Amino acid sequence: MGSIQKITGTLVLVVSASFSVNAQQFNKSEDAIKYRKGAFTVMNAQFDQLASMAKGNLPYDAKVASEGAAAVEALSKLPWAGFAEGTDKGETKARPEIWTDAAKFKDAQGKLMTETAKLAIAAKTGKLEDLKVAVSATGGACKNCHENFKSK
Amino acid sequence: MGSIQKITGTLVLVVSASFSVNAQQFNKSEDAIKYRKGAFTVMNAQFDQLASMAKGNLPYDAKVASEGAAAVEALSKLPWAGFAEGTDKGETKARPEIWTDAAKFKDAQGKLMTETAKLAIAAKTGKLEDLKVAVSATGGACKNCHENFKSK
Repeated sequence: MGSIQKITGTLVLVVSASFSVNAQQFNKSEDAIKYRKGAFTVMNAQFDQLASMAKGNLPYDAKVASEGAAAVEALSKLPWAGFAEGTDKGETKARPEIWTDAAKFKDAQGKLMTETAKLAIAAKTGKLEDLKVAVSATGGACKNCHENFKSK
Repeated sequence: MGSIQKITGTLVLVVSASFSVNAQQFNKSEDAIKYRKGAFTVMNAQFDQLASMAKGNLPYDAKVASEGAAAVEALSKLPWAGFAEGTDKGETKARPEIWTDAAKFKDAQGKLMTETAKLAIAAKTGKLEDLKVAVSATGGACKNCHENFKSK
């Protein structure tokens, strides 16, 4: 367990160094909500395509997968700026825990960004098996955050 | 003019080689529309931040600008898959010319992607003057497409 924890610690450190807080500012709460929803919509569509390849529902295309995974990685950095204070009301499924348990939410963001970075690397190998593993891990990071911070 | 045309030709070739058509598929027209709107919303928000820095309305932060420009570059590749045939109706400002003059629309996409690639490079120099030039050129590419293909 010691070495696993050390590896996890290293990964988190890499994430902290690579993904700084985006300084995006919004004039209106609804703009922030629209922004973060947009980022999730596009990330979800791109990820769905990779998941379909992993499941065999869509023919595996290494180039498309590599581009899609790069898009998912880039997109995974973006929604968080839209969760500014005061954007908990309106057309949103965001749960209050996002703001009341901000450290845990930040940790969940970090987990996703770590997995999408690995996904992008895995997709570049051109091996469907690598993609499958990374898609599964990324899906787990999505689910982890949804279960804790998104209303049904 | 000969050499300028040659340069333009080279750029287009680079764009064609770098940005292949995203194979994103949608089950419903409204999903495609939601997807492309999401991509534009996020790209616009990220670009606005850079434009604010270029105009002096937001303090210049080289790191934030570099990350924002990288996001804009990544996002500029994504909306186009959402303009599939049959997605001209619904909650959209997309003009029919997108489909009736597809070659011109594709050219406008290429221009944007070329400018956002240059924007990402310019933002990495850490020089506000470089950012200003690239923001202006990218804004021109946005405007070019909106004027021809987006309803008011």
